[in-house]
Amino acid sequence: MKVLFIGDVVGSPGRKTLKEYLPKLKQKYRPDVTIVNGENAAGGKGLTDKVYYEIRETGADIITLGNHAWDKKEIFDFIDKTDELVRPANFPEGTPGVGYVIKKVGSQKIAVINGQGRAFMPAIDCPFRTLENIVNEVKEKTPIIFVDFHAEATSEKQAMGWFLDGKASAVVGTHTHVQTADERILPGGTAFITDVGMTGPYDGILGVEKEAVIHKFLTSLPVRFEVTSGREQLSGVFITIDNKSGLAESIKRISINDDRPFFD
Amino acid sequence: MKVLFIGDVVGSPGRKTLKEYLPKLKQKYRPDVTIVNGENAAGGKGLTDKVYYEIRETGADIITLGNHAWDKKEIFDFIDKTDELVRPANFPEGTPGVGYVIKKVGSQKIAVINGQGRAFMPAIDCPFRTLENIVNEVKEKTPIIFVDFHAEATSEKQAMGWFLDGKASAVVGTHTHVQTADERILPGGTAFITDVGMTGPYDGILGVEKEAVIHKFLTSLPVRFEVTSGREQLSGVFITIDNKSGLAESIKRISINDDRPFFD
Amino acid sequence: MKVLFIGDVVGSPGRKTLKEYLPKLKQKYRPDVTIVNGENAAGGKGLTDKVYYEIRETGADIITLGNHAWDKKEIFDFIDKTDELVRPANFPEGTPGVGYVIKKVGSQKIAVINGQGRAFMPAIDCPFRTLENIVNEVKEKTPIIFVDFHAEATSEKQAMGWFLDGKASAVVGTHTHVQTADERILPGGTAFITDVGMTGPYDGILGVEKEAVIHKFLTSLPVRFEVTSGREQLSGVFITIDNKSGLAESIKRISINDDRPFFD
Amino acid sequence: MKVLFIGDVVGSPGRKTLKEYLPKLKQKYRPDVTIVNGENAAGGKGLTDKVYYEIRETGADIITLGNHAWDKKEIFDFIDKTDELVRPANFPEGTPGVGYVIKKVGSQKIAVINGQGRAFMPAIDCPFRTLENIVNEVKEKTPIIFVDFHAEATSEKQAMGWFLDGKASAVVGTHTHVQTADERILPGGTAFITDVGMTGPYDGILGVEKEAVIHKFLTSLPVRFEVTSGREQLSGVFITIDNKSGLAESIKRISINDDRPFFD
Ligand SMILES: [Fe+2]
Ligand SMILES: [Fe+2]
Ligand SMILES: [Fe+2]
Ligand SMILES: [Fe+2]
Ligand SMILES: [Fe+2]
Ligand SMILES: [Fe+2]
Ligand SMILES: [Fe+2]
Ligand SMILES: [Fe+2]
Repeated sequence: MKVLFIGDVVGSPGRKTLKEYLPKLKQKYRPDVTIVNGENAAGGKGLTDKVYYEIRETGADIITLGNHAWDKKEIFDFIDKTDELVRPANFPEGTPGVGYVIKKVGSQKIAVINGQGRAFMPAIDCPFRTLENIVNEVKEKTPIIFVDFHAEATSEKQAMGWFLDGKASAVVGTHTHVQTADERILPGGTAFITDVGMTGPYDGILGVEKEAVIHKFLTSLPVRFEVTSGREQLSGVFITIDNKSGLAESIKRISINDDRPFFD
Repeated sequence: MKVLFIGDVVGSPGRKTLKEYLPKLKQKYRPDVTIVNGENAAGGKGLTDKVYYEIRETGADIITLGNHAWDKKEIFDFIDKTDELVRPANFPEGTPGVGYVIKKVGSQKIAVINGQGRAFMPAIDCPFRTLENIVNEVKEKTPIIFVDFHAEATSEKQAMGWFLDGKASAVVGTHTHVQTADERILPGGTAFITDVGMTGPYDGILGVEKEAVIHKFLTSLPVRFEVTSGREQLSGVFITIDNKSGLAESIKRISINDDRPFFD
Repeated sequence: MKVLFIGDVVGSPGRKTLKEYLPKLKQKYRPDVTIVNGENAAGGKGLTDKVYYEIRETGADIITLGNHAWDKKEIFDFIDKTDELVRPANFPEGTPGVGYVIKKVGSQKIAVINGQGRAFMPAIDCPFRTLENIVNEVKEKTPIIFVDFHAEATSEKQAMGWFLDGKASAVVGTHTHVQTADERILPGGTAFITDVGMTGPYDGILGVEKEAVIHKFLTSLPVRFEVTSGREQLSGVFITIDNKSGLAESIKRISINDDRPFFD
Repeated sequence: MKVLFIGDVVGSPGRKTLKEYLPKLKQKYRPDVTIVNGENAAGGKGLTDKVYYEIRETGADIITLGNHAWDKKEIFDFIDKTDELVRPANFPEGTPGVGYVIKKVGSQKIAVINGQGRAFMPAIDCPFRTLENIVNEVKEKTPIIFVDFHAEATSEKQAMGWFLDGKASAVVGTHTHVQTADERILPGGTAFITDVGMTGPYDGILGVEKEAVIHKFLTSLPVRFEVTSGREQLSGVFITIDNKSGLAESIKRISINDDRPFFD
């Protein structure tokens, strides 16, 4: 199975970039399934009903989330009415939404799991135990298991990669909004990258107006963070997985911006 | 001026890798000056007298540090006796060592500045103000200014890049031990990368035995972190700078490991 | 000099309680100067022009602040137009407002300094160096020096107490909203208490609706924190200082609530 | 039932103070059961076999722990061989030791539960869910339920008090090493105090040499923290509980030091 994953889409610049390049990427890579992290898709923080459907119509089969999942309160109204939206699985029992979905893709199935780290992030349930349990559960139904692990610390993301090596088809990190250059197939057969990076403004700081972020670091005063405008970027990975074993065959970084233009 | 920078050298595997590849990299890139981050060079944490000279003899002109600078107490004995060792400049007044050096390279000079972030890290002096002051000071002596900004958060590192854009020749991040794929010349002419990545074990977690790190995340119990063995990697950047303007002309990531073998 | 200090006044319940008891406390203790921490006085977070004057009219001579100083944006409009409002001194250069005031009280003067900790709090300038510098400066003008050190960690607050022991007349902690029972005169002559506690709701959690805070701990979802209603409390300290030496003679905790009713 | 609880005993000065005053306190208050927090009892960090038995012989029926539980590796050898030692219950499954004990006291039983907070502390399992489950379990066996909640943030400790109000006989906080003055019976009948405070050095910072702690705050350099010497203090609470309902009748703070001498 061929999987295209697009990292944190930030605000309207991110959605615009997705609309521009997703068709081209699909034509180039011919993915069987497309997964998009949408935790920042609505105004830079959270996801609304409207934006969810907009991204789905752009060509995303499944949308994953992260720590910003809950920033737009509309999410609570529609998260349980959708089948293709996944929030971090290790939020405690009783949290709206689901932590994974299993999707039919032709004659195959792919399980898409979302997890969230705890290093430098809020204390929720143990992501390692939670994801291990889900992996054990879903492997009864399909060997193709894709994990979006949304976390801050490189150590926690790499730990998750090694922890699930040979058990998941792919573990890709999100959240830092900066793509890492360490994509690889781990020895057990799991495709891994510490962070996929973001999709949206290219000349901001993680998508936000740089003046505001610098002002915050300089003053420690309250600052309103707005999604910035100007040039854009897209970040993603393309992963191919053996349908029988569920192990990864290849992982390729995708980075599109003015310094790395898209080629067909 | 051509600058070769090698990211956090971790323990003896890191030093061994440096010894193997630094001569080859020098032959390939012909740098005028070579800078190595050595904060993890002695046993994974800190730097000793012996290891300092070992790295210098391997071919490093200048060694930078970071939050682990002080982990081997020997550092306090020799840091003020060396001319080529730089610790984060924004440690408070009275801290041993210096936060920058100016080195003669042929008929030119390069200022090498080390800074440390505060997001998810200890509260020291403001890195933005400190580095701005140093940049203003050293630019009287040379337009070629290289900054190793050792920090955890991608936001703080990108903020520093934009903050010094057009003022420093290069701002390269270190500390997360994972190379990012966002190297670029910012609009003002500063070469930037969020993190250069590490040099040392390839199959550990940031250089440490993966079993220990996973155990820590699973149990929250005290764990002894040891530098792991096995395959190795080297991470660096090669930057060319215009001698007149001090602006960067190019930045190229260097990543050597079993998945990305070295080619002459 | 006799100093009455009232800890973090939270919202309208806090202001109401202050109005009820400040006259009674003044009659009982006959303070020469009354200082009130007002960082939560407007709706639980920050301070407005209107609330500032309301507290001053209630009988506060000087108002101190803390990390919530900036939460109501009106503060930026009036902070530099007042003479009796002090914000943490160790916010970086260029921050509006002042970090200390010197006030005439009869034939004496009292310097009132506000500082903010960094442990578990935002990284601003070093409170120890900043407060030491201010103490050295103001002692040229008066030996009577009162410090409100707004900090989270007991270790940092106690460190400040010992650090300024014999140099300041009093170091009182604020911010945790819970009064500590460790008031004492340190060996050098400085009156100290780790935290004065809060003034406002008695049956909330730090003044906030308890259901909301518990929900936050249980779910990690976004929660709106509102000042709660019901019974109230007042927390303060009364300190007497020798006018010549500036050393403290006594420190007495004041705690008024349904379990500890006020007696004349 | 009458319960005497003594807060974090720090090093040999703490054990010495315990030996001196525990007999006197028992004579004065005639507790049916004595509980001591011993997380810092061995050299300021952790607990050894030898120190465990020393404290038990001093007169402690049950010993509770906290985040420092694991600092002396000997704990792993004996924690599962004792019946009267409780570590925080919300460490993940598989952690050595137990999170609560039920002890016979005459014809009654008392359940003693230890929990640990997560605000500003390591991410372990949810203390609210874990303690609620244990409370529901043990109340089948006894209505007398004592909770030592070891946590940093006042908000989390007060949240636990209100969360268990009417369900536990007492919720007492530990960890900050500073006694709070807010002891009370909550409306539902649970005795509560935000922090009991520590037992050990009176002139250190949380029991540690003050020079070292101040040096750490001033320099951010590595510092060795040693238990300090000199004068001592003891901190505790005495709680009386109705045997039928399990609700608290009274809570009284105990603080013994040079400023608050012990009286029979
Ligand atoms: Fe994001
Ligand atoms: Fe995120
Ligand atoms: Fe490092
Ligand atoms: Fe580092
Ligand atoms: Fe406050
Ligand atoms: Fe505060
Ligand atoms: Fe403790
Ligand atoms: Fe503790």
